[in-house]
Amino acid sequence: MPDLVDSLSTLLGPSRVSVRADDLAAHATDKWFAAEQPSVVVSPESTEEVSELLRWAEAERVPVTPQGARVGYVGGAVPAHRGIALNLLRMNRLLELNLADGVAVVQPGLITAELQAAARQQGWFYPPDPASLKECSLGGNIATNAGGPRCLKYGVTRHYVLGLEAVLAGGSVVRGGGRCHKNKTGFDLVGLMVGSEGMLGVVTEATLRLIPHPPMRCMISAGFRTFPEVAHAVQTILNCGFLPSALEIADAFTLRAARQYLGESVTPEGDAHLLVELDGQADTLPIEAGHVAQLIADLGAVRVEQAHGEEASERFWQLRREFSYSLRATGLIKLNEDIVVPRGRLVDLVEFASTLQAEFDFPVACFGHAGDGNIHVNIMVPTMEDGPVRERAEAALDRLFLQVIAWNGAITGEHGVGLAKKRWWRHAVSPATHAAHLALKQALDPHHILNPGKFLD
Amino acid sequence: MPDLVDSLSTLLGPSRVSVRADDLAAHATDKWFAAEQPSVVVSPESTEEVSELLRWAEAERVPVTPQGARVGYVGGAVPAHRGIALNLLRMNRLLELNLADGVAVVQPGLITAELQAAARQQGWFYPPDPASLKECSLGGNIATNAGGPRCLKYGVTRHYVLGLEAVLAGGSVVRGGGRCHKNKTGFDLVGLMVGSEGMLGVVTEATLRLIPHPPMRCMISAGFRTFPEVAHAVQTILNCGFLPSALEIADAFTLRAARQYLGESVTPEGDAHLLVELDGQADTLPIEAGHVAQLIADLGAVRVEQAHGEEASERFWQLRREFSYSLRATGLIKLNEDIVVPRGRLVDLVEFASTLQAEFDFPVACFGHAGDGNIHVNIMVPTMEDGPVRERAEAALDRLFLQVIAWNGAITGEHGVGLAKKRWWRHAVSPATHAAHLALKQALDPHHILNPGKFLD
Repeated sequence: MPDLVDSLSTLLGPSRVSVRADDLAAHATDKWFAAEQPSVVVSPESTEEVSELLRWAEAERVPVTPQGARVGYVGGAVPAHRGIALNLLRMNRLLELNLADGVAVVQPGLITAELQAAARQQGWFYPPDPASLKECSLGGNIATNAGGPRCLKYGVTRHYVLGLEAVLAGGSVVRGGGRCHKNKTGFDLVGLMVGSEGMLGVVTEATLRLIPHPPMRCMISAGFRTFPEVAHAVQTILNCGFLPSALEIADAFTLRAARQYLGESVTPEGDAHLLVELDGQADTLPIEAGHVAQLIADLGAVRVEQAHGEEASERFWQLRREFSYSLRATGLIKLNEDIVVPRGRLVDLVEFASTLQAEFDFPVACFGHAGDGNIHVNIMVPTMEDGPVRERAEAALDRLFLQVIAWNGAITGEHGVGLAKKRWWRHAVSPATHAAHLALKQALDPHHILNPGKFLD
Repeated sequence: MPDLVDSLSTLLGPSRVSVRADDLAAHATDKWFAAEQPSVVVSPESTEEVSELLRWAEAERVPVTPQGARVGYVGGAVPAHRGIALNLLRMNRLLELNLADGVAVVQPGLITAELQAAARQQGWFYPPDPASLKECSLGGNIATNAGGPRCLKYGVTRHYVLGLEAVLAGGSVVRGGGRCHKNKTGFDLVGLMVGSEGMLGVVTEATLRLIPHPPMRCMISAGFRTFPEVAHAVQTILNCGFLPSALEIADAFTLRAARQYLGESVTPEGDAHLLVELDGQADTLPIEAGHVAQLIADLGAVRVEQAHGEEASERFWQLRREFSYSLRATGLIKLNEDIVVPRGRLVDLVEFASTLQAEFDFPVACFGHAGDGNIHVNIMVPTMEDGPVRERAEAALDRLFLQVIAWNGAITGEHGVGLAKKRWWRHAVSPATHAAHLALKQALDPHHILNPGKFLD
């Protein structure tokens, strides 16, 4: 596509434009299966350049797929209609860290963990903590409204975006929200951009809310004999007036894989595992952790362990991460679906997973954020290359997603729809709600140049 | 308007329609100055009736102004273009309280305090706490994205709306979000409706997030000699890793009015007052409160008092409410503006209030939610009936709002724009941002029948 490259080089300068084979290949995909090479990779370095690009792209009707660090799980950053891969990683500065105002002003390419570290060094906290935080970008977090284990207490990315600057499809630069922790100035443009998966605008700057870092962290790890017991424990902890920063569970299949990979001695006992994180003040939190540990023991846990302080707590989280590696070590492919069920459905979900396992003959491993019902259901398949196996896997996924929808659950809690969940999106929303989505898309991107081929198409 | 009444009576039944003089008068206004009588008051009892009404009203191009309990402070519920006052108070049921799922499903006319009480009885908590909670409706809270003192820790109404059903201008019924505590299914229709002041749709049902009620509450009341000292205390408490549920301040004018109204003995000493609320666990929270009280004493407070437990804390809040009554007792009219400044501007704001006072010769009282910079600036005027005085008051307001905007503040934190702040809205948003608002309005309400005459017109 020499014309495209020439025009863009003239518009933005040749240093912003690449058609090198390795660039095209790298920008074809994220962490999901699908891949589609863009015609060109454009890497702007300012809001003005993004604006110039989008004005030109709309006039020329060239598709533009905004990309952050491309570590999403659903193919959301795949340039499904080719055209321009809009790489935002060069806009990666922490523009301001202002603790008197309690804000950080960032560019979209900044890596999440870098912001967290910068805030932490001053005793402040940016709570959203997706598992990929060391490699994902804040722009990507905003596009997917990223979550993580601590959402139970602290909420998702949306709750920390006070203001943002975004470029719309025709190149106009809008600002939503601002620098204040409360703001009712107009319609919620911030919310509309957050989680819109690059389909309504390109975020070029965000003002994020910081809170004081809780000085102390404690954790409790507990094995239970059965899954219904662990689900009951989750409800009881909340019913007793505790709001942990995280409440994570893992099921029998996950624990079996962990025993095989890590060994009996380090893996928690029982067929269901509970991990509780609490945060608070240095001298009082250990007392509270003791109460929660006692409560859990009284509920019949086979073994309860506590960690007090940063380092000990980190070891518990490390074990939790090993669960995920253990599943990979089975040699099977992990179809990791971040469905959400109303919290009262946790037991139903795990029972349904057993049924699925029996019916489709794939192992199913469930673990994740029990406190908010956001369980990662992993259907473990030997291959996705073999036609009949793949079809069986897809059928199992269909069953799972339709059941989740029937329970008033959500098809995605924090990963987004992307390409991976596109076919269930229509089942998850009514025709009137779909029409409202199309009307909003039409209002802000009338020629559908932004991230085409995703859930609205 | 006999045709209008006949048509609506035929459509919905005569029991839903009123043109009684007292009804028309009651539905002409909220708690602000402006009043405009609607042509008719319609009180639907179901989503279907709201849908029928809006389908008809759009076809006939009749303005519709949705109304909750009409206790807003900005004239947002005033039917500025007459037409239909859509009274939602008959749809006032608590449809479901499900603690296993951590949700309440409500109709828009339910009074906020009633939901709080129902949840509280079971040990659960709906945190948004606008001052009017005993008389305001949840639908009104959603329309204005209502806040309150506890937003510092708990966030605004938006953070508690998991899902909602809304009727759009043409009568179509859409659903955003759902029943789950995390949901990334599509665009953020929930956020778009919350805070839209009845201009994008009519909310007919909401699913609200509940959290465990913290079993214990403690408060600290402290007098400081000067306002800069109290602002420094606010920053220091946060910098030391405490996130109180509320951090409220009051300035010298407010305290002087309180001394006059309540007497010296009960009013805190000093020229600036700090009120801190902490919540947590029964046996550990008093220890934490002790630490915060010591910190405040070390910062030079002239007097520090603590309250432990529900009843004692309530007495501190009662005193805080008396501040507001004290201002009314001056006999002056209180122009209460809920502006927000970045937290680092608290001292600047109070100094600016002194300048304003000197320049325009009106007393100015500042108090409110210091933790999130949402200070209620009260310009105290003798009358709004007298032309020159009114003009002087309006000029003072202009100065205040333009200064707030210059500081990257917000013209409203929790009351909304309504009619009261309409003239500063254009200053607060750029032309491109204004255009984006119009595009969204056009997408969902193409004939501008919903709450016309407000900030977009």
